[in-house]
Amino acid sequence: MKLLEYTKHIKSKVDEYMSKKVIGPINVKKLYDASYHLIGAGGKRLRPTLVVLGARIAGAQEDQVIPAAASVELMHTFSLVHDDIMDRDEYRRGVPTVHKLWGEPLAILAGDLLFAKAYEALLDVEQYGIPPDRIVEATKILTWIAVTLAEGQTLDMNFEERMDVSEEEYLEMIEKKTAAMFKGSLMIGAILGGGAKETVKKLGEFGRLTGIAFQIQDDILGIIGDEKVLGKPVWSDLREGKKTIIIIHALNNATADQRKQILSVLGRRDASLDELKQVAGILKSLGSIDYAIGKAKEYTMKALSILESITTSDSEAKDMLKEMAMFIIKRRY
Amino acid sequence: MKLLEYTKHIKSKVDEYMSKKVIGPINVKKLYDASYHLIGAGGKRLRPTLVVLGARIAGAQEDQVIPAAASVELMHTFSLVHDDIMDRDEYRRGVPTVHKLWGEPLAILAGDLLFAKAYEALLDVEQYGIPPDRIVEATKILTWIAVTLAEGQTLDMNFEERMDVSEEEYLEMIEKKTAAMFKGSLMIGAILGGGAKETVKKLGEFGRLTGIAFQIQDDILGIIGDEKVLGKPVWSDLREGKKTIIIIHALNNATADQRKQILSVLGRRDASLDELKQVAGILKSLGSIDYAIGKAKEYTMKALSILESITTSDSEAKDMLKEMAMFIIKRRY
Repeated sequence: MKLLEYTKHIKSKVDEYMSKKVIGPINVKKLYDASYHLIGAGGKRLRPTLVVLGARIAGAQEDQVIPAAASVELMHTFSLVHDDIMDRDEYRRGVPTVHKLWGEPLAILAGDLLFAKAYEALLDVEQYGIPPDRIVEATKILTWIAVTLAEGQTLDMNFEERMDVSEEEYLEMIEKKTAAMFKGSLMIGAILGGGAKETVKKLGEFGRLTGIAFQIQDDILGIIGDEKVLGKPVWSDLREGKKTIIIIHALNNATADQRKQILSVLGRRDASLDELKQVAGILKSLGSIDYAIGKAKEYTMKALSILESITTSDSEAKDMLKEMAMFIIKRRY
Repeated sequence: MKLLEYTKHIKSKVDEYMSKKVIGPINVKKLYDASYHLIGAGGKRLRPTLVVLGARIAGAQEDQVIPAAASVELMHTFSLVHDDIMDRDEYRRGVPTVHKLWGEPLAILAGDLLFAKAYEALLDVEQYGIPPDRIVEATKILTWIAVTLAEGQTLDMNFEERMDVSEEEYLEMIEKKTAAMFKGSLMIGAILGGGAKETVKKLGEFGRLTGIAFQIQDDILGIIGDEKVLGKPVWSDLREGKKTIIIIHALNNATADQRKQILSVLGRRDASLDELKQVAGILKSLGSIDYAIGKAKEYTMKALSILESITTSDSEAKDMLKEMAMFIIKRRY
């Protein structure tokens, strides 16, 4: 598979760069260890690959934007570290979360450091001949991602206490919490590559749509995924009371009894595996999972049609974006 | 007093700008309210004033750098919000801290939002005719401040558990936690104003030295300050076991009995007012407070001699920096 090979290739370059970037004085080694923890624990590096492909489509060389590719991964990791504290998650990428290992105060700081390092990385592209006006524009997008992530996480947390979240509200939330990062990654790449306004806009829209599909797929895997492959406990979304598109569909289509059963488990951190399994069964029987699969496909199709309309001399990069959109809704991890 | 008037003038401009910057969609109003809380609660806006004075000395107009001045205040506020969570502080600027009012998860997010808004603000200077290469340089400094703040807070927290912190270690910590922000503020101003390398460097060094003096004065006020004027409980540094220059001097000069008494109170959050008062008395009798006062003066004198060597056509701005250095060690809040 062309894309997966390329993602691995980008991962090795980006990871090498990050391992040199997230390193500090010996007397604050703990802070840097905590910051590097989730980076070292794995991850597919889809977002960095989006930056590089966006830049290639716009006309830049891969090596010019490796620091920018690392930048969005650092920003992504920052948000994982802080979200895990807020959501009280204990596992991520198959390892204990940062706050579980180092405590909350240092986990807050580790997130803050990664946030700053995301900017440090982006500004490094200056050394690869990217002109300052493009760097300023890209930095605006990185900042827009950060603001939008915070708003998205706020909505997500608000929803946990509410039982009447609509599909529109869910879509707004994942657009902010997940899709903005995909959109921003492609835009940063395209801007640094000197892409025309129209190209930047179209790539951003492609990213937004595949980002929405990615999150819906994530929500699906939260119900039917394999714990060992995912690296985190399945059904934790149910335990945390996350209002995913699956839950929203189910609550809207359940009988009074089914609704009661779903609500008796949702958001209860001490729910037993048996209870969770039963609710998962109800979600399946109501067609809520198939509904989500259909929605993810719908967004992916829209994304692909936008991608088609982009003209570039790098048809290989464009083909890989196409493959990425299709991979996202087929993935099992 | 010329400087205090000017600080008020800058405060009104910067505050107006921030009130328009820290505002968001109605469905995440809570996040923006929490983010704005400490901004609205007061503060002298010394750091923004440093940005503006640095820019004026380098040759820019005050109004060109108001967003940059707001930027460092937003970065400062971010660090206060997160530090208050880590230090379990309950009051700041005379009001309950953000996590006390909105809970830790939202306080973490509010800090993150302020962090992002600091960048958003700095990038706004583009609209006032500042060229992109200067914006990129200034953004590097803002990022350096953020990295350094996280390292400084890590050291500060490490020190709480240690009883053998040296004066050198303390100075390194406050250089990162406090002085970097003063240094960075002046450098950002000077860079945006198009100052010569030598001017940027000297203003940075002036900022670093006054920043150290500022923190020493803060530590002094933590023992002899007035609670109502400070807006936070006096002696909380003792309760939290902060290793200030005063404590370090006292531990190095105490009799065995005095040392025992100090250590029996230091870091004990349930220490009584009587116990705290007694320890404060020991610190005074050992000359530790006078020692700190002398040190603060020493750094201020060094700062002033560097300031003297800077040439500028804006002698008014230079005079105000001089006044600022002297105000810092005389202030009672």
